[in-house]
Amino acid sequence: MNIEKIRAAAARAEGHIRRTPLLSSPALDAIAGRRVWVKAECLQHTGSFKARGGWAAVSALSDAQRSAGIIAYSSGNHAQGVARAARAMGAPAVIVMPADAPKAKIDGTRALGAEVVPYDRATEDRDAIGARLAAERGLTLVKPFDDPEVIAGQGTTGLEIAAQAAESGIGAADVLVCCGGGGLTSGIALALAAEAPDLSVRPVEPVGFDDVTRSLAAGEILSNDRLSGSICDAIVTPRPGDLTFPILKRLCGPGIVVPDEDCLRAMALAFTHLKLVLEPGGAIALAAALFHGSPQDGDDVIAVASGGNVDPAMFARALEMV
Amino acid sequence: MNIEKIRAAAARAEGHIRRTPLLSSPALDAIAGRRVWVKAECLQHTGSFKARGGWAAVSALSDAQRSAGIIAYSSGNHAQGVARAARAMGAPAVIVMPADAPKAKIDGTRALGAEVVPYDRATEDRDAIGARLAAERGLTLVKPFDDPEVIAGQGTTGLEIAAQAAESGIGAADVLVCCGGGGLTSGIALALAAEAPDLSVRPVEPVGFDDVTRSLAAGEILSNDRLSGSICDAIVTPRPGDLTFPILKRLCGPGIVVPDEDCLRAMALAFTHLKLVLEPGGAIALAAALFHGSPQDGDDVIAVASGGNVDPAMFARALEMV
Repeated sequence: MNIEKIRAAAARAEGHIRRTPLLSSPALDAIAGRRVWVKAECLQHTGSFKARGGWAAVSALSDAQRSAGIIAYSSGNHAQGVARAARAMGAPAVIVMPADAPKAKIDGTRALGAEVVPYDRATEDRDAIGARLAAERGLTLVKPFDDPEVIAGQGTTGLEIAAQAAESGIGAADVLVCCGGGGLTSGIALALAAEAPDLSVRPVEPVGFDDVTRSLAAGEILSNDRLSGSICDAIVTPRPGDLTFPILKRLCGPGIVVPDEDCLRAMALAFTHLKLVLEPGGAIALAAALFHGSPQDGDDVIAVASGGNVDPAMFARALEMV
Repeated sequence: MNIEKIRAAAARAEGHIRRTPLLSSPALDAIAGRRVWVKAECLQHTGSFKARGGWAAVSALSDAQRSAGIIAYSSGNHAQGVARAARAMGAPAVIVMPADAPKAKIDGTRALGAEVVPYDRATEDRDAIGARLAAERGLTLVKPFDDPEVIAGQGTTGLEIAAQAAESGIGAADVLVCCGGGGLTSGIALALAAEAPDLSVRPVEPVGFDDVTRSLAAGEILSNDRLSGSICDAIVTPRPGDLTFPILKRLCGPGIVVPDEDCLRAMALAFTHLKLVLEPGGAIALAAALFHGSPQDGDDVIAVASGGNVDPAMFARALEMV
């Protein structure tokens, strides 16, 4: 992995991936006690940053691989990112999704033309299902995070953050990034290390699923005890990736762990002050910026709002907090 | 009014007003049967395009006028636009608002440092209240739409649409714009006539408040029978403006009239497919694009999503339609 791979992914994405805005609001600044900048990746195609990694990975395959078809496993955002890229490039796509994924994500994936294969998150192993289907049908697996092209694609978010921070007069700042397997976090960290070294990345995770935070503290890969039980479905993963963790360890500051309740509060504030629809996992970095700062933090903080694929019932829960 | 005034407003707004994105979604295209482009002005500062007109008007005043203070009347979006500009330029602001305006708008206006003076929309005349307060306190009135600088400020939206349509490969298209007094509609129409004459503006209004549509059909200014009774609070105005109507008559196509229910449906679809929070009046042009097209319409339609300042209870009504 290196910055050239990220730049190449950005070049291939030209015209296919949105440059999402960096938003702010005086009301959020007042809550956080510093300037809060929100990278609105919920406005990305498919409603999350995963469109970036999907595009990068599928566009890096050979024509023969694309013709034979693609497989991915995902709670829904990677699913849609891969499905969109596959359809745009004429590749069949099979997506293995947990049966309890938000309906918005399952519907969105099907609407993008993919075949959805459901599995039980608590009892079945998605890696094993993916490997079996790939072997049976000759499909190429696009992993959700532990793949150099996927990391490069997510890293294009970091190239934009570097440019937008310069445009907005942001000097040194923490960049808070929701962290599941670490694809987005490691990609952004690599991009910023090359293009904006005064911006330093900190991963943000839900309480109970803080594998990256504990792994960074321990200096080695540790796993979560559970595989479900947070409203932040998009970032509940068993453990950091073998490719992503060394990057996180080299480039990121300590993790921040946030309770689910604070994600709902951040969703409510994004509704009121930014007019953005965020899903719980997509709001967790904003929640960290608003409610989990510390006195030694700098004047600016950048939070990546990574996605907005949320069912109405969950969003209604957040609205009750307005 | 001319294009130079709009360009001058754009120059004064540089660094203070956002260039909002032009978004799209395959799901919306499928519903409309053509490509639908959404100019996301809900992402503008203060949550609506009114930040543009407020900035243009306040920045065009003399230092003495700004020091003495500014007054405006508004159901809430113009209120916040003027309040934000006034605070940024050190001017005191008094805003006359209907007592039944959405709480989000009243709170937002107060949070921007303005003094809010409530009035009864059904029985009191906001123009008279504004004129009296202006005289008593030496305040300068910034009208919500019938003011050349306000029209010029709103017209900066049109400059962006012209540029973004070219970037997105949009040739001829209808540009649907929510229409209250006609400030935004006339400003965009002027900008497009100069910079993208293949884009033609059509005003969109709520059922029962279709003064512009009827006035355009009649060739003269007609009024609404009622002053309240639509969920589209932002665009319920008594009649087209004396400055705006001649521009609308010269440059715009026929109006489109949309029931409130369709605005809620458009809000639900913007939630699901664009991750945008829209208020009812801010969704009406999208509703027209999605549900009120006709066979002779072209391949592309652009809808201005003008604002997102909506209370949670109203948004919850829209979520029920997802």
